[in-house]
Amino acid sequence: MRVHFVTLFGLKEELVHSNLSETIINRLSIYMHYLSKQDEGGKKLVSPYDIAQVCGVKAGLVRKDLARFGRFGIKGVGYYVTDLLQGIKSIFGLDRKLHVAIIGRHNIGLYFLSFKGFLNGNYEIVAVFDTKPEIAVRSLTSEITRSVDILHITCLKEVAKIRKIDIAIINTIPSEAQDVVSQVVKGGIRGILNFTPSYVKVPRGFIAKNIQFAAEQDSLVYLLKS
Amino acid sequence: MRVHFVTLFGLKEELVHSNLSETIINRLSIYMHYLSKQDEGGKKLVSPYDIAQVCGVKAGLVRKDLARFGRFGIKGVGYYVTDLLQGIKSIFGLDRKLHVAIIGRHNIGLYFLSFKGFLNGNYEIVAVFDTKPEIAVRSLTSEITRSVDILHITCLKEVAKIRKIDIAIINTIPSEAQDVVSQVVKGGIRGILNFTPSYVKVPRGFIAKNIQFAAEQDSLVYLLKS
Repeated sequence: MRVHFVTLFGLKEELVHSNLSETIINRLSIYMHYLSKQDEGGKKLVSPYDIAQVCGVKAGLVRKDLARFGRFGIKGVGYYVTDLLQGIKSIFGLDRKLHVAIIGRHNIGLYFLSFKGFLNGNYEIVAVFDTKPEIAVRSLTSEITRSVDILHITCLKEVAKIRKIDIAIINTIPSEAQDVVSQVVKGGIRGILNFTPSYVKVPRGFIAKNIQFAAEQDSLVYLLKS
Repeated sequence: MRVHFVTLFGLKEELVHSNLSETIINRLSIYMHYLSKQDEGGKKLVSPYDIAQVCGVKAGLVRKDLARFGRFGIKGVGYYVTDLLQGIKSIFGLDRKLHVAIIGRHNIGLYFLSFKGFLNGNYEIVAVFDTKPEIAVRSLTSEITRSVDILHITCLKEVAKIRKIDIAIINTIPSEAQDVVSQVVKGGIRGILNFTPSYVKVPRGFIAKNIQFAAEQDSLVYLLKS
Protein backbone atom coordinates (compact mmCIF):
# COMPACT_ATOMS: atom_id res chain seq x y z
CA MET A 1 0.00 0.00 0.00
CA ARG A 2 1.23 3.49 -0.82
CA VAL A 3 0.53 6.38 1.49
CA HIS A 4 1.23 9.96 0.59
CA PHE A 5 1.41 12.66 3.17
CA VAL A 6 3.27 15.77 4.10
CA THR A 7 5.45 15.60 7.19
CA LEU A 8 5.91 18.33 9.73
CA PHE A 9 8.81 19.63 7.74
CA GLY A 10 6.77 20.04 4.61
CA LEU A 11 8.54 17.27 2.77
CA LYS A 12 6.29 15.11 0.67
CA GLU A 13 7.11 11.54 1.53
CA GLU A 14 5.92 8.36 0.02
CA LEU A 15 5.83 5.38 2.25
CA VAL A 16 5.25 1.83 1.26
CA HIS A 17 3.83 -0.15 4.11
CA SER A 18 1.94 -3.34 3.97
CA ASN A 19 1.02 -6.00 6.48
CA LEU A 20 0.73 -3.69 9.45
CA SER A 21 -0.45 -5.91 12.26
CA GLU A 22 -3.96 -5.44 13.61
CA THR A 23 -2.47 -4.54 17.00
CA ILE A 24 -0.58 -1.58 15.56
CA ILE A 25 -3.60 -0.49 13.54
CA ASN A 26 -5.71 -0.58 16.72
CA ARG A 27 -3.18 1.54 18.58
CA LEU A 28 -3.02 4.06 15.73
CA SER A 29 -6.80 4.25 15.86
CA ILE A 30 -6.71 5.03 19.59
CA TYR A 31 -4.01 7.67 19.05
CA MET A 32 -6.15 9.21 16.33
CA HIS A 33 -9.25 9.45 18.55
CA TYR A 34 -7.20 10.95 21.37
CA LEU A 35 -5.60 13.52 19.05
CA SER A 36 -8.99 14.37 17.62
CA LYS A 37 -10.27 15.23 21.12
CA GLN A 38 -7.16 17.29 21.89
CA ASP A 39 -7.55 19.12 18.59
CA GLU A 40 -11.18 19.94 19.37
CA GLY A 41 -10.07 21.20 22.78
CA GLY A 42 -7.58 23.55 21.12
CA LYS A 43 -4.42 21.78 22.31
CA LYS A 44 -1.41 22.39 20.04
CA LEU A 45 1.25 19.98 21.32
CA VAL A 46 1.24 16.53 22.96
CA SER A 47 4.06 14.38 24.27
CA PRO A 48 4.48 10.65 23.56
CA TYR A 49 3.76 10.20 27.30
CA ASP A 50 0.35 11.86 26.95
CA ILE A 51 -0.52 9.57 24.04
CA ALA A 52 0.87 6.47 25.76
CA GLN A 53 -1.40 6.96 28.76
CA VAL A 54 -4.64 6.69 26.82
CA CYS A 55 -3.93 3.17 25.70
CA GLY A 56 -1.78 1.83 28.50
CA VAL A 57 1.48 1.42 26.61
CA LYS A 58 4.94 2.93 27.09
CA ALA A 59 5.96 6.19 25.45
CA GLY A 60 8.76 4.40 23.60
CA LEU A 61 6.22 2.26 21.78
CA VAL A 62 4.24 5.33 20.72
CA ARG A 63 7.43 6.88 19.31
CA LYS A 64 8.23 3.65 17.48
CA ASP A 65 4.70 3.31 16.05
CA LEU A 66 4.70 6.85 14.74
CA ALA A 67 8.25 6.71 13.42
CA ARG A 68 7.06 4.07 10.92
CA PHE A 69 5.18 6.74 9.04
CA GLY A 70 7.54 9.67 8.97
CA ARG A 71 9.02 12.32 11.24
CA PHE A 72 5.97 13.60 13.08
CA GLY A 73 7.67 14.76 16.26
CA ILE A 74 10.26 17.34 17.24
CA LYS A 75 12.70 16.21 19.91
CA GLY A 76 12.14 17.91 23.25
CA VAL A 77 8.99 19.61 21.94
CA GLY A 78 6.54 16.78 21.23
CA TYR A 79 4.06 16.26 18.43
CA TYR A 80 1.99 18.96 16.77
CA VAL A 81 -1.60 17.77 17.28
CA THR A 82 -3.10 18.89 13.97
CA ASP A 83 -0.25 17.59 11.83
CA LEU A 84 -0.06 14.24 13.58
CA LEU A 85 -3.85 13.86 13.40
CA GLN A 86 -3.87 14.56 9.67
CA GLY A 87 -0.96 12.17 9.16
CA ILE A 88 -2.74 9.30 10.93
CA LYS A 89 -5.99 10.04 9.11
CA SER A 90 -4.09 9.71 5.83
CA ILE A 91 -2.75 6.33 6.89
CA PHE A 92 -6.33 5.15 7.45
CA GLY A 93 -7.73 6.78 4.34
CA LEU A 94 -9.92 8.99 6.50
CA ASP A 95 -9.15 12.20 4.66
CA ARG A 96 -12.86 12.30 3.85
CA LYS A 97 -15.88 11.29 5.97
CA LEU A 98 -16.97 7.74 5.22
CA HIS A 99 -20.62 6.89 4.74
CA VAL A 100 -22.10 4.20 6.97
CA ALA A 101 -25.40 2.30 6.83
CA ILE A 102 -26.81 0.39 9.78
CA ILE A 103 -28.81 -2.68 8.80
CA GLY A 104 -31.16 -4.14 11.38
CA ARG A 105 -32.71 -2.61 14.47
CA HIS A 106 -31.09 -4.76 17.14
CA ASN A 107 -29.42 -3.10 20.08
CA ILE A 108 -25.89 -2.77 18.82
CA GLY A 109 -27.14 -0.48 16.08
CA LEU A 110 -28.77 1.74 18.66
CA TYR A 111 -25.46 1.80 20.46
CA PHE A 112 -23.73 3.12 17.38
CA LEU A 113 -26.39 5.68 16.76
CA SER A 114 -26.12 6.91 20.35
CA PHE A 115 -22.34 6.80 20.58
CA LYS A 116 -21.34 10.39 19.95
CA GLY A 117 -17.67 9.63 19.33
CA PHE A 118 -18.84 7.55 16.41
CA LEU A 119 -21.29 9.95 14.82
CA ASN A 120 -19.15 13.05 15.24
CA GLY A 121 -15.94 11.45 14.08
CA ASN A 122 -14.77 10.31 10.71
CA TYR A 123 -17.96 8.47 9.84
CA GLU A 124 -21.42 9.62 8.98
CA ILE A 125 -24.46 7.40 9.28
CA VAL A 126 -26.40 8.08 6.09
CA ALA A 127 -29.13 5.43 6.32
CA VAL A 128 -30.72 2.77 8.51
CA PHE A 129 -32.32 -0.26 6.84
CA ASP A 130 -34.71 -2.76 8.36
CA THR A 131 -37.22 -5.38 7.25
CA LYS A 132 -39.78 -3.57 9.41
CA PRO A 133 -38.95 0.15 9.30
CA GLU A 134 -42.14 1.00 11.18
CA ILE A 135 -40.92 -1.00 14.20
CA ALA A 136 -37.33 0.23 13.90
CA VAL A 137 -38.45 3.84 13.96
CA ARG A 138 -40.09 3.32 17.36
CA SER A 139 -36.84 1.93 18.83
CA LEU A 140 -34.87 5.02 17.92
CA THR A 141 -34.82 8.32 19.72
CA SER A 142 -36.28 11.38 18.03
CA GLU A 143 -32.82 12.92 17.90
CA ILE A 144 -31.77 10.16 15.50
CA THR A 145 -34.93 9.84 13.43
CA ARG A 146 -34.75 13.56 12.72
CA SER A 147 -31.39 13.09 11.00
CA VAL A 148 -31.46 9.58 9.47
CA ASP A 149 -34.12 7.83 7.37
CA ILE A 150 -35.25 4.33 8.25
CA LEU A 151 -35.71 2.55 4.94
CA HIS A 152 -36.96 -0.85 3.89
CA ILE A 153 -34.18 -3.34 3.21
CA THR A 154 -35.39 -3.76 -0.39
CA CYS A 155 -34.18 -0.20 -1.15
CA LEU A 156 -30.61 -1.12 -0.18
CA LYS A 157 -29.07 -1.49 -3.64
CA GLU A 158 -30.42 1.78 -5.01
CA VAL A 159 -29.75 3.83 -1.90
CA ALA A 160 -26.21 2.43 -1.54
CA LYS A 161 -25.31 3.95 -4.91
CA ILE A 162 -27.07 7.28 -4.45
CA ARG A 163 -25.70 7.89 -0.95
CA LYS A 164 -22.26 6.40 -1.73
CA ILE A 165 -22.31 4.02 1.25
CA ASP A 166 -18.81 2.78 2.13
CA ILE A 167 -19.57 0.56 5.13
CA ALA A 168 -22.51 -1.54 6.31
CA ILE A 169 -22.95 -2.46 9.96
CA ILE A 170 -24.90 -5.71 10.17
CA ASN A 171 -27.16 -5.87 13.13
CA THR A 172 -29.93 -8.26 12.10
CA ILE A 173 -30.99 -11.50 13.73
CA PRO A 174 -28.14 -14.02 13.21
CA SER A 175 -29.99 -16.27 10.75
CA GLU A 176 -30.55 -13.33 8.35
CA ALA A 177 -26.97 -12.06 8.41
CA GLN A 178 -25.61 -13.89 5.33
CA ASP A 179 -28.66 -13.01 3.19
CA VAL A 180 -28.33 -9.36 4.11
CA VAL A 181 -24.60 -9.43 3.38
CA SER A 182 -25.33 -10.79 -0.10
CA GLN A 183 -27.60 -7.80 -0.69
CA VAL A 184 -24.92 -5.47 0.65
CA VAL A 185 -22.42 -6.97 -1.80
CA LYS A 186 -24.89 -6.53 -4.69
CA GLY A 187 -25.18 -2.89 -3.63
CA GLY A 188 -21.42 -2.53 -4.05
CA ILE A 189 -20.75 -1.70 -0.38
CA ARG A 190 -17.21 -2.99 0.10
CA GLY A 191 -16.78 -2.87 3.88
CA ILE A 192 -18.88 -4.86 6.33
CA LEU A 193 -18.84 -4.97 10.12
CA ASN A 194 -20.88 -7.96 11.20
CA PHE A 195 -22.03 -7.71 14.81
CA THR A 196 -24.21 -10.81 14.72
CA PRO A 197 -22.77 -14.06 16.10
CA SER A 198 -23.12 -15.67 12.62
CA TYR A 199 -19.97 -15.84 10.52
CA VAL A 200 -20.51 -14.20 7.12
CA LYS A 201 -18.60 -14.62 3.86
CA VAL A 202 -17.92 -12.07 1.12
CA PRO A 203 -16.43 -12.42 -2.37
CA ARG A 204 -12.95 -11.15 -3.28
CA GLY A 205 -12.69 -7.37 -3.26
CA PHE A 206 -15.02 -7.02 -0.27
CA ILE A 207 -13.98 -7.11 3.39
CA ALA A 208 -16.14 -8.39 6.23
CA LYS A 209 -15.05 -8.19 9.86
CA ASN A 210 -16.92 -10.62 12.05
CA ILE A 211 -17.02 -9.13 15.53
CA GLN A 212 -17.37 -11.97 17.99
CA PHE A 213 -18.55 -10.73 21.39
CA ALA A 214 -18.69 -14.23 22.79
CA ALA A 215 -15.05 -14.76 21.83
CA GLU A 216 -14.01 -11.60 23.69
CA GLN A 217 -15.82 -12.83 26.76
CA ASP A 218 -14.39 -16.35 26.48
CA SER A 219 -10.84 -15.11 25.99
CA LEU A 220 -11.18 -12.95 29.12
CA VAL A 221 -12.16 -16.06 31.03
CA TYR A 222 -9.22 -17.93 29.57
CA LEU A 223 -6.86 -15.17 30.74
CA LEU A 224 -8.44 -15.16 34.21
CA LYS A 225 -7.77 -18.87 34.50
CA SER A 226 -4.15 -18.66 33.26
CA MET B 1 -1.13 -22.78 32.88
CA ARG B 2 -2.08 -26.37 33.59
CA VAL B 3 -5.18 -27.93 32.10
CA HIS B 4 -6.53 -31.29 33.18
CA PHE B 5 -9.00 -33.17 31.11
CA VAL B 6 -9.96 -36.59 30.01
CA THR B 7 -9.48 -37.45 26.37
CA LEU B 8 -11.78 -39.52 24.24
CA PHE B 9 -9.84 -42.58 25.21
CA GLY B 10 -10.34 -42.04 28.91
CA LEU B 11 -6.71 -41.17 29.54
CA LYS B 12 -6.20 -38.34 31.99
CA GLU B 13 -3.76 -35.96 30.42
CA GLU B 14 -2.05 -32.95 31.78
CA LEU B 15 -1.13 -30.28 29.35
CA VAL B 16 0.99 -27.28 30.01
CA HIS B 17 0.13 -24.52 27.65
CA SER B 18 0.82 -20.89 28.05
CA ASN B 19 0.88 -17.94 25.69
CA LEU B 20 -1.83 -19.22 23.40
CA SER B 21 -2.36 -16.41 20.93
CA GLU B 22 -5.60 -14.48 21.06
CA THR B 23 -6.34 -15.62 17.52
CA ILE B 24 -6.31 -19.28 18.55
CA ILE B 25 -8.36 -18.55 21.66
CA ASN B 26 -10.93 -16.76 19.51
CA ARG B 27 -11.15 -19.72 17.14
CA LEU B 28 -11.55 -22.16 20.03
CA SER B 29 -14.35 -19.98 21.33
CA ILE B 30 -16.13 -20.14 17.97
CA TYR B 31 -15.66 -23.93 17.84
CA MET B 32 -17.12 -24.18 21.33
CA HIS B 33 -20.26 -22.20 20.46
CA TYR B 34 -20.76 -24.24 17.32
CA LEU B 35 -20.36 -27.52 19.21
CA SER B 36 -22.74 -26.30 21.87
CA LYS B 37 -25.43 -25.73 19.24
CA GLN B 38 -24.80 -29.14 17.67
CA ASP B 39 -24.99 -30.76 21.09
CA GLU B 40 -28.34 -29.08 21.82
CA GLY B 41 -29.57 -30.30 18.44
CA GLY B 42 -28.63 -33.87 19.37
CA LYS B 43 -25.79 -34.28 16.88
CA LYS B 44 -23.22 -36.89 17.94
CA LEU B 45 -20.35 -36.48 15.46
CA VAL B 46 -18.86 -33.58 13.50
CA SER B 47 -16.05 -33.44 10.97
CA PRO B 48 -13.24 -30.88 10.97
CA TYR B 49 -14.81 -29.62 7.71
CA ASP B 50 -18.08 -28.86 9.52
CA ILE B 51 -16.22 -26.91 12.20
CA ALA B 52 -13.98 -25.13 9.70
CA GLN B 53 -16.97 -23.73 7.83
CA VAL B 54 -18.38 -21.79 10.77
CA CYS B 55 -15.33 -19.59 11.07
CA GLY B 56 -14.02 -19.50 7.52
CA VAL B 57 -10.79 -21.44 8.01
CA LYS B 58 -9.47 -24.67 6.49
CA ALA B 59 -10.14 -28.08 8.08
CA GLY B 60 -6.40 -28.62 8.52
CA LEU B 61 -6.21 -25.64 10.84
CA VAL B 62 -9.08 -26.98 12.94
CA ARG B 63 -7.26 -30.31 13.29
CA LYS B 64 -4.06 -28.50 14.23
CA ASP B 65 -5.79 -26.28 16.81
CA LEU B 66 -7.48 -29.21 18.49
CA ALA B 67 -4.41 -31.43 18.39
CA ARG B 68 -2.71 -28.97 20.77
CA PHE B 69 -4.98 -30.14 23.56
CA GLY B 70 -5.07 -33.88 23.12
CA ARG B 71 -6.50 -36.54 20.86
CA PHE B 72 -10.10 -35.45 20.46
CA GLY B 73 -10.79 -36.98 17.08
CA ILE B 74 -10.93 -40.44 15.56
CA LYS B 75 -9.52 -40.74 12.05
CA GLY B 76 -12.19 -41.30 9.42
CA VAL B 77 -14.95 -40.84 12.01
CA GLY B 78 -14.65 -37.24 13.18
CA TYR B 79 -15.05 -35.66 16.59
CA TYR B 80 -17.54 -36.72 19.25
CA VAL B 81 -19.51 -33.53 19.94
CA THR B 82 -20.03 -33.93 23.70
CA ASP B 83 -16.45 -34.92 24.45
CA LEU B 84 -14.92 -32.20 22.32
CA LEU B 85 -17.27 -29.60 23.82
CA GLN B 86 -16.34 -30.62 27.36
CA GLY B 87 -12.66 -30.60 26.44
CA ILE B 88 -12.79 -27.06 25.07
CA LYS B 89 -14.86 -25.87 28.03
CA SER B 90 -12.12 -27.20 30.31
CA ILE B 91 -9.50 -25.24 28.40
CA PHE B 92 -11.49 -22.07 29.03
CA GLY B 93 -12.33 -22.89 32.63
CA LEU B 94 -16.00 -22.99 31.74
CA ASP B 95 -16.77 -26.21 33.59
CA ARG B 96 -19.13 -24.10 35.69
CA LYS B 97 -21.38 -21.17 34.72
CA LEU B 98 -19.68 -17.85 35.34
CA HIS B 99 -21.54 -15.01 37.02
CA VAL B 100 -21.74 -11.72 35.16
CA ALA B 101 -22.81 -8.23 36.26
CA ILE B 102 -23.71 -5.47 33.82
CA ILE B 103 -22.86 -2.00 35.04
CA GLY B 104 -24.54 0.93 33.36
CA ARG B 105 -27.69 1.09 31.30
CA HIS B 106 -26.24 2.14 27.97
CA ASN B 107 -27.17 0.21 24.88
CA ILE B 108 -24.46 -2.38 24.74
CA GLY B 109 -25.71 -3.76 28.03
CA LEU B 110 -29.15 -4.15 26.57
CA TYR B 111 -27.56 -5.99 23.69
CA PHE B 112 -26.01 -8.49 26.05
CA LEU B 113 -29.23 -8.94 27.94
CA SER B 114 -31.11 -9.56 24.72
CA PHE B 115 -28.49 -11.78 23.09
CA LYS B 116 -29.78 -15.25 23.76
CA GLY B 117 -26.54 -17.02 22.90
CA PHE B 118 -25.00 -15.07 25.72
CA LEU B 119 -27.59 -15.65 28.41
CA ASN B 120 -28.15 -19.33 27.67
CA GLY B 121 -24.53 -20.23 27.32
CA ASN B 122 -21.73 -20.47 29.82
CA TYR B 123 -22.53 -17.20 31.55
CA GLU B 124 -25.34 -16.08 33.78
CA ILE B 125 -26.20 -12.44 34.35
CA VAL B 126 -26.80 -12.21 38.09
CA ALA B 127 -27.16 -8.43 38.53
CA VAL B 128 -27.43 -5.09 36.76
CA PHE B 129 -26.07 -1.97 38.48
CA ASP B 130 -26.75 1.63 37.63
CA THR B 131 -26.49 5.07 39.21
CA LYS B 132 -30.18 5.52 38.41
CA PRO B 133 -31.85 2.11 38.72
CA GLU B 134 -35.29 3.66 38.28
CA ILE B 135 -34.33 4.85 34.79
CA ALA B 136 -32.46 1.65 33.90
CA VAL B 137 -35.48 -0.47 34.73
CA ARG B 138 -37.55 1.41 32.17
CA SER B 139 -35.00 0.69 29.41
CA LEU B 140 -35.17 -3.04 29.94
CA THR B 141 -37.81 -5.40 28.68
CA SER B 142 -40.10 -7.12 31.19
CA GLU B 143 -38.55 -10.47 30.22
CA ILE B 144 -35.25 -9.26 31.69
CA THR B 145 -36.50 -7.35 34.72
CA ARG B 146 -38.41 -10.45 35.81
CA SER B 147 -35.15 -12.38 36.09
CA VAL B 148 -32.48 -9.82 37.06
CA ASP B 149 -32.48 -7.09 39.74
CA ILE B 150 -31.44 -3.57 38.87
CA LEU B 151 -29.44 -2.33 41.85
CA HIS B 152 -27.84 0.95 42.82
CA ILE B 153 -24.12 1.08 42.09
CA THR B 154 -23.38 1.66 45.79
CA CYS B 155 -24.45 -1.94 46.52
CA LEU B 156 -21.77 -3.29 44.18
CA LYS B 157 -19.18 -4.41 46.74
CA GLU B 158 -21.62 -6.32 48.94
CA VAL B 159 -23.57 -7.91 46.10
CA ALA B 160 -20.37 -8.94 44.28
CA LYS B 161 -19.44 -11.13 47.24
CA ILE B 162 -22.87 -12.57 47.90
CA ARG B 163 -23.58 -13.44 44.26
CA LYS B 164 -19.98 -14.47 43.52
CA ILE B 165 -19.65 -12.21 40.48
CA ASP B 166 -16.78 -13.27 38.19
CA ILE B 167 -17.04 -10.69 35.42
CA ALA B 168 -18.24 -7.09 35.15
CA ILE B 169 -19.33 -5.61 31.85
CA ILE B 170 -18.77 -1.86 31.93
CA ASN B 171 -21.34 0.06 30.03
CA THR B 172 -21.43 3.48 31.67
CA ILE B 173 -20.78 6.88 30.12
CA PRO B 174 -17.07 7.00 29.21
CA SER B 175 -16.06 9.57 31.86
CA GLU B 176 -17.36 7.32 34.66
CA ALA B 177 -15.65 4.13 33.46
CA GLN B 178 -12.45 4.31 35.53
CA ASP B 179 -14.33 5.21 38.75
CA VAL B 180 -16.69 2.29 38.28
CA VAL B 181 -13.77 -0.06 37.55
CA SER B 182 -12.15 1.00 40.85
CA GLN B 183 -15.36 -0.02 42.63
CA VAL B 184 -15.42 -3.31 40.72
CA VAL B 185 -11.85 -4.00 41.85
CA LYS B 186 -12.79 -3.20 45.47
CA GLY B 187 -15.61 -5.70 45.12
CA GLY B 188 -13.05 -8.36 44.14
CA ILE B 189 -14.45 -8.92 40.63
CA ARG B 190 -11.36 -10.05 38.70
CA GLY B 191 -12.53 -9.90 35.10
CA ILE B 192 -13.67 -6.72 33.34
CA LEU B 193 -14.98 -6.17 29.83
CA ASN B 194 -14.96 -2.44 29.19
CA PHE B 195 -17.25 -1.44 26.33
CA THR B 196 -16.84 2.30 26.81
CA PRO B 197 -14.35 4.12 24.57
CA SER B 198 -12.32 5.13 27.68
CA TYR B 199 -9.26 3.03 28.43
CA VAL B 200 -9.37 1.64 32.00
CA LYS B 201 -6.59 0.33 34.20
CA VAL B 202 -6.65 -2.40 36.82
CA PRO B 203 -4.11 -3.52 39.43
CA ARG B 204 -2.13 -6.75 39.14
CA GLY B 205 -4.28 -9.86 39.55
CA PHE B 206 -7.22 -8.30 37.69
CA ILE B 207 -7.80 -8.38 33.95
CA ALA B 208 -9.55 -5.70 31.95
CA LYS B 209 -10.27 -6.02 28.24
CA ASN B 210 -10.90 -2.69 26.61
CA ILE B 211 -13.15 -3.34 23.63
CA GLN B 212 -12.58 -0.58 21.11
CA PHE B 213 -15.41 -0.38 18.61
CA ALA B 214 -13.90 2.63 16.91
CA ALA B 215 -10.65 0.70 16.36
CA GLU B 216 -12.56 -2.16 14.70
CA GLN B 217 -14.19 0.30 12.37
CA ASP B 218 -10.93 2.13 11.63
CA SER B 219 -9.03 -1.06 10.94
CA LEU B 220 -11.75 -2.13 8.48
CA VAL B 221 -11.23 1.14 6.65
CA TYR B 222 -7.48 0.60 6.67
CA LEU B 223 -7.98 -2.83 5.09
CA LEU B 224 -10.35 -1.42 2.48
CA LYS B 225 -7.72 1.09 1.48
CA SER B 226 -4.86 -1.46 1.32
